[in-house]
Amino acid sequence: MAFPTKKLIDDPNDVVTEFIEGLVETYPGLQYLDGFPQVKVVLRADVSAATYDKVAVISGGGSGHEPAHSGFVGEGMLTAAICGDIFSSPPVDSILAGIRAVTGPKGCLLIVKNYTGDRLNFGLAAELAKSEGYKVETVIVGDDCALPPPRGIAGRRGLAGTILVHKVAGAAAAAGLSLNDVAAEAKHASEIVGTMGVALSVCTIPGQVASDRLGPGKMELGLGIHGEPGAAVVDIQPVNVVVSHVLQQILSTETNFVPITRGERVVLMVNGLGGSPTMELMITAGKAVPKLQLEHGLAVDRVYTGSFMTSLDMAGFSISIMKADPAILQRLDAPTKAPYWPVAADGNHPPAKIPVPISGSRSAKTDEPQSKPQQLNEQGQILEIAIEAAANAIINLKDNLNEWDGKVGDGDCGSTMSRGAKAILEDIKNYPLNDAADTLGEIGSSIGRSMGGTSGIIYTIFFKAAHSHLKASSHSGVTSKQWAEALKASIAAVSKYGGASAGYRTLLDALIPASLVLEEKLNSGDDPCTAFILSSEAALAGAQSTVDMQAQAGRSTYISGEILSTVPDPGAMAAATWFRAAALAVEAKHES
Amino acid sequence: MAFPTKKLIDDPNDVVTEFIEGLVETYPGLQYLDGFPQVKVVLRADVSAATYDKVAVISGGGSGHEPAHSGFVGEGMLTAAICGDIFSSPPVDSILAGIRAVTGPKGCLLIVKNYTGDRLNFGLAAELAKSEGYKVETVIVGDDCALPPPRGIAGRRGLAGTILVHKVAGAAAAAGLSLNDVAAEAKHASEIVGTMGVALSVCTIPGQVASDRLGPGKMELGLGIHGEPGAAVVDIQPVNVVVSHVLQQILSTETNFVPITRGERVVLMVNGLGGSPTMELMITAGKAVPKLQLEHGLAVDRVYTGSFMTSLDMAGFSISIMKADPAILQRLDAPTKAPYWPVAADGNHPPAKIPVPISGSRSAKTDEPQSKPQQLNEQGQILEIAIEAAANAIINLKDNLNEWDGKVGDGDCGSTMSRGAKAILEDIKNYPLNDAADTLGEIGSSIGRSMGGTSGIIYTIFFKAAHSHLKASSHSGVTSKQWAEALKASIAAVSKYGGASAGYRTLLDALIPASLVLEEKLNSGDDPCTAFILSSEAALAGAQSTVDMQAQAGRSTYISGEILSTVPDPGAMAAATWFRAAALAVEAKHES
Repeated sequence: MAFPTKKLIDDPNDVVTEFIEGLVETYPGLQYLDGFPQVKVVLRADVSAATYDKVAVISGGGSGHEPAHSGFVGEGMLTAAICGDIFSSPPVDSILAGIRAVTGPKGCLLIVKNYTGDRLNFGLAAELAKSEGYKVETVIVGDDCALPPPRGIAGRRGLAGTILVHKVAGAAAAAGLSLNDVAAEAKHASEIVGTMGVALSVCTIPGQVASDRLGPGKMELGLGIHGEPGAAVVDIQPVNVVVSHVLQQILSTETNFVPITRGERVVLMVNGLGGSPTMELMITAGKAVPKLQLEHGLAVDRVYTGSFMTSLDMAGFSISIMKADPAILQRLDAPTKAPYWPVAADGNHPPAKIPVPISGSRSAKTDEPQSKPQQLNEQGQILEIAIEAAANAIINLKDNLNEWDGKVGDGDCGSTMSRGAKAILEDIKNYPLNDAADTLGEIGSSIGRSMGGTSGIIYTIFFKAAHSHLKASSHSGVTSKQWAEALKASIAAVSKYGGASAGYRTLLDALIPASLVLEEKLNSGDDPCTAFILSSEAALAGAQSTVDMQAQAGRSTYISGEILSTVPDPGAMAAATWFRAAALAVEAKHES
Repeated sequence: MAFPTKKLIDDPNDVVTEFIEGLVETYPGLQYLDGFPQVKVVLRADVSAATYDKVAVISGGGSGHEPAHSGFVGEGMLTAAICGDIFSSPPVDSILAGIRAVTGPKGCLLIVKNYTGDRLNFGLAAELAKSEGYKVETVIVGDDCALPPPRGIAGRRGLAGTILVHKVAGAAAAAGLSLNDVAAEAKHASEIVGTMGVALSVCTIPGQVASDRLGPGKMELGLGIHGEPGAAVVDIQPVNVVVSHVLQQILSTETNFVPITRGERVVLMVNGLGGSPTMELMITAGKAVPKLQLEHGLAVDRVYTGSFMTSLDMAGFSISIMKADPAILQRLDAPTKAPYWPVAADGNHPPAKIPVPISGSRSAKTDEPQSKPQQLNEQGQILEIAIEAAANAIINLKDNLNEWDGKVGDGDCGSTMSRGAKAILEDIKNYPLNDAADTLGEIGSSIGRSMGGTSGIIYTIFFKAAHSHLKASSHSGVTSKQWAEALKASIAAVSKYGGASAGYRTLLDALIPASLVLEEKLNSGDDPCTAFILSSEAALAGAQSTVDMQAQAGRSTYISGEILSTVPDPGAMAAATWFRAAALAVEAKHES
């Protein structure tokens, strides 16, 4: 099971420099020092040591934690980020170059995660910079709460809580504070934040073979962010259980890692480790907030959810809890141009949900139960006869439709269509038949409730579009011209949303010829009844012509031409059939 | 190889609603409609249909593409996002509820990705909303360039290019344009963008078993975003090759999917599919920009890199290219509060890289080659004798140190230390011995160049800190009190950056007692030479006492107490030895 890891990269040795090149292409506020491959420093494009009148805030460390740290460079957060190779501390010269590039007379603060390599390299760079005359302070962050209280210093690793320390320090520096004050705020922030991580997979280092340390069904608790094993491997649990455990561990009064007690206010960071999708991180945040409130008695002032401090492509997350007070919130909410700080997370929350609105202006009318008028006018009578004839024609054609569809589709066209037809026949007793527009709207509703499937939606759109059109164009009676225009509008809606047009082997191959003939005959002065009959003949001819068509939409696109050429499109045949039946019924009524 | 997929979720049926809950907890600018589980609509918390005087821009579709679409809700982008279940179009009622919630008198634009289900459900909702009296326009986006020009409509799927259409439409709406104008801009945007995707893994749907469709070493070209197979499966290639292929495909003059020709300007979007880390996406962006410029003759005005339209946890990316002109750039650069739009990507680029700065104020001096004065003053002579004695003592102790270290470490303490000592003996001919501060700085440099390893950095920090301290405190000669303070400052630096303190079984267990005794004896009026000798005895006693200590820092923390108790800490013994040798040499010189 040891596969070479799959990555979209070129040379594994170039991943960090190439990352920086892409980052700087993406964000015009960032630049880098021209010292590849040794010196890998990303800095604010608007800061020059010679003119910078704020405290510079510098962080960094091994790469593989993207967007940390370089994605947090920007006004109001980091002034520069020093990047090492993957999971390796940057060398002293690189750190020193970064300090020199951005540190002005107010000095610089180095924020260092608590790993021996980082402490030593940043420490030496700090001493060298001081001996060059720079003012330098260093704050070391160890926010890990996964391991029992350490015997030595190795225990508390620097994890995603460091990002919050960056933000506090960056905002303090942007506010113009002195180096001592910025360092004091950063140190305070580092002492009130705790973090713990959970992983579902081990990260894979570019160019190396993936470890199979974590088997299927297993997860790791209290992991580090460099592929080092976690504190414990356990069976995978629902996120609800995992979140409870992690919060318990961070807030434990036994270890007392963070000075947070019931009744206080906090901010929450849910940090993805690289391979976990946004969906899972948000689900985690959604679980953590009520638990903090209800199980731990803490008010949650801010929630930051995203992939901030990752471990390459590791699946999992860490949770950080920081004690909040107005001063901390002011720093966290302060504006920043750092690309990856979640700016939209600031401010107080309105109610999370609002009621689903009832329908708009016409709602009252639409929601009233429609009913058949006691007395039908002439148009109402014609409409009733046409609808019944059309519906019955579909029910009679059911077996043919199913048979044709069995060859070119899934064989249920007849059943589906006849389900709609039956619903219409059942509902017609309540249709407002003297109002043709509203009746067509009701037909659409009957179909929408009963038919299902793509054709159910298509026909609902067809009748609702006719309804809208007639509603807007007609007032009392509907003229034959208005009928023709309504048909055109319905066809246009079906074509747009369904995506088909003439020749695609769909119901439109019946309805489009019908519409064209109807319009033409009416324009040339034919009487409406004749025009309607001729139109329905065109519908039938059009439907039958689909035998020779290639499918261009719907399921039949996957069927070979040889099979298709044995049957007409069932949807087109159904459309022609109900249209023709309606026309014939209207004609019969006129003749009677 | 069919494992159940590992996800940090609870019930797979609740992932979409729980995602929305977490999203709204994170971003106070968002709310949702209280219609779970059927109605899943995220909307701007500051918009109410009753008062909204802009065109509402609404999008949505199946879930599983997070942060799309709900993460793009916010002023200047989407007014509402309608979420379906995973990879399923949202139902009509849900879309209609969203339209009703945010659509004011200026109407709403629905932006729909070209999938049959979305087209039909959004289409029907549009027709129903129109029949309720709302003004509604719909723009359908099909930006996929992976498949050959379609026979029908099924070919061009809506992919990440849709996000750019959202931005253009949202900015146009925010600018106060009419519905027709907003729709026209959105339609135009949809016609000038092309997208193609590449995947290294198949996405895993919550609650389902992972497909093993893509074997090791394989990648899929032209994939969809719903787990549907790509256009081709090929051997995995370097990202350089992959990017070339994808750009070629999008910009092909044969298929002519997007109307972009040589000499024009474009924007680039590199979109992660969920499981690819930021590092790989940025590398991809860094490859694509020069290729667009050099191979395709296109100027790249903006680059958007991130995971915008994902496919759950799929590893891979899509690239979108949109034709750019000042009007489009104005819309893309317009401010937005949508949480996931990469705001910092706007504006023009400064040079990507700037020169590595040479060292600061003291650089000229530091870079000059130091040299030994022709005539040594008394302090210079003492310093020379002390340094030589200390270095020789370490070289003589090499085998003992290696032997002790072999029991508690990796056995190279003597070799490492003696490498530093030899370098000092070699370099001493160039030390500016009459300036004690600069000489200590040079010792630090000799060690930094030669020793390597953690102890190399520790000793470099030790001597550089002493250098900085003496530089700041002494002028011509160095008093014994200043020497004592410099020792204290060096110990403080080593303790801070190395993370150890007294009792941790390190070199500090020799140096801390030495420092304390030196300070005490000088304060009580002992002559400096005696104080130094007594101090060095304390160093030796301290080093020997490490035999009984548990290791708290460094590699020895992993060694059992039983083994540790047989030897002293080699680092402490080394420190005591050079310190004692220096003291004895100074005493001998004084007596001579």
